Amino acid sequence: MKAVALGGGRGLHATLSALRRLTPDVTAVVTVADDGGSSGRLRRELGLLPPGDLRKALAALAGDDDGNSLWATVFQHRFGGTGALAGHAVGNLVLAALLELLDDPVTALDEAARLLGLKGRVLPMCTEPLDIEADVVGLDEDPAAVRRIRGQVAVATTPGQVRRIRLHTAGEPDDVPKACPAAVTAVREADVVLLGPGSWFTSVLPHLLVPELHEALIDTAASRIVVLNLVPQPGETAGFSPERHLDVLCEHAPRLRVDAVIADADSVPTPDRLRTAAESLGARLRLDAIAAAGTRERHDPAALAESLRGAFDEVTSARRDG
Amino acid sequence: MKAVALGGGRGLHATLSALRRLTPDVTAVVTVADDGGSSGRLRRELGLLPPGDLRKALAALAGDDDGNSLWATVFQHRFGGTGALAGHAVGNLVLAALLELLDDPVTALDEAARLLGLKGRVLPMCTEPLDIEADVVGLDEDPAAVRRIRGQVAVATTPGQVRRIRLHTAGEPDDVPKACPAAVTAVREADVVLLGPGSWFTSVLPHLLVPELHEALIDTAASRIVVLNLVPQPGETAGFSPERHLDVLCEHAPRLRVDAVIADADSVPTPDRLRTAAESLGARLRLDAIAAAGTRERHDPAALAESLRGAFDEVTSARRDG
Repeated sequence: MKAVALGGGRGLHATLSALRRLTPDVTAVVTVADDGGSSGRLRRELGLLPPGDLRKALAALAGDDDGNSLWATVFQHRFGGTGALAGHAVGNLVLAALLELLDDPVTALDEAARLLGLKGRVLPMCTEPLDIEADVVGLDEDPAAVRRIRGQVAVATTPGQVRRIRLHTAGEPDDVPKACPAAVTAVREADVVLLGPGSWFTSVLPHLLVPELHEALIDTAASRIVVLNLVPQPGETAGFSPERHLDVLCEHAPRLRVDAVIADADSVPTPDRLRTAAESLGARLRLDAIAAAGTRERHDPAALAESLRGAFDEVTSARRDG
Repeated sequence: MKAVALGGGRGLHATLSALRRLTPDVTAVVTVADDGGSSGRLRRELGLLPPGDLRKALAALAGDDDGNSLWATVFQHRFGGTGALAGHAVGNLVLAALLELLDDPVTALDEAARLLGLKGRVLPMCTEPLDIEADVVGLDEDPAAVRRIRGQVAVATTPGQVRRIRLHTAGEPDDVPKACPAAVTAVREADVVLLGPGSWFTSVLPHLLVPELHEALIDTAASRIVVLNLVPQPGETAGFSPERHLDVLCEHAPRLRVDAVIADADSVPTPDRLRTAAESLGARLRLDAIAAAGTRERHDPAALAESLRGAFDEVTSARRDG
């Protein structure tokens, strides 16, 4: 089974940790719009792709949660202290060096994957760094006033309500971001494609705003599965219901059909509404117990893997029968 | 042939680049007193062994001059720009992470060696960072006044004349530095041990000031070969003749016997004096053309390898005959 997971950050870490339990052929397609933390510092200082989400995806596919890979541990290690290096993840620095030394970010990531002994592959959504810009309401006295907020950190933490996002390149204001060709190919050739979980506006939806990736997601013969978040994210999706997440997805990609929507059974206040929203995208809703024990904050990789396997099998047999 | 090279910096890079042409069984024993540049910044910020000389030794054994090892290239890559990372060698950052994550610096270096595909081994002289202190004359109006200068950079660049050096640990003022046990074993079990070339007071002599390493160098059955510098180093050995280098060695280790002294034929103004100085240490003098073409600044690895092979064979047959 060829699986492709699109996203960034902790959400992508969750799907990759689940997928690598199902198949060795996993490709992560990662957002490149981060402007915060260690990634943001490296991006500003060296003018490179922000490496943090790429590093997290590599570590997830290497099985850093098993603690059995020295280099995955090294990649995730952060320098402490109060000096110039404090907070930098070592893998970000190594990726930055590979990006500087090798002309092609795909080659750089393949070399890092080889170092970590990965079976899967990590690809950037685009090969140049991007900026996210959001239309946000609720920041002014006039509740209908729309403000443009720019940058991943600013959007992710806005106290307003995000309505819509756009992507910008470093070039001309109207430049359209170009997809990484290998990522487009991976989506087109996949058996299953996952969107979410993760920061909805800043990690999940950006992929839909890259035209070639958008078309590939619409055209692909792969099963399309959306995995919803366990809890709304303070800031960008504060107060969002599960079904609102699907509405927003639809607003950014009206032609996209989805085969299955997976949500945690205990995290859905109104299952009927969510089922209706899923069906309007063409999807079956699957409610499983997929939260990690003792928290509503993250997914359990084994339970998510089982749910994904079930959803994939359902979609496959429904397509066969239909 | 088991070869051990003691030193640091560019001089050690030269002997390692030569030795790896002669035998896969090379161990570098590296000074850990650097307090300048990227190493000094990491040492101060993170409280670790200064990694720069260790990194250079790893890169030399990996054959970084062949340009065929990606990770050796990554290790030697320095970040540019004007930001917080400017000037840091990537290998220093990776070594710093390994030193933080693994309890034992020897394990950390063995893992780095594995990454670089090394056949040989790189060991620190001591497992804790050290400071060099030098007695220096010529800094005051009174030409006989002796000043204590502390720190590798300060000693290496002093405008005065270095007379003698001592090592200090971070502990009590009278603490004696403890040798890395694996380094002591390597010297005792070697077939050939090399001292020099390199910054004489700050990279070559420090090994003789670690008591267990000093004794191992005196006791070992290995052939002891000293390789002299091509040119005096501005600062610590400005104006030093080749024979003065041997005198200083003898002053810091009066019981040390040497089997061979190698010098570049064109870099010795008074060969007879040098031969006398070598013989007073028990050594044969070997004058070969070992400078790189077009420069007096560095050794040619292939020519130095040939000279070392010749010196080793001479010592072996002299011992057999004697």
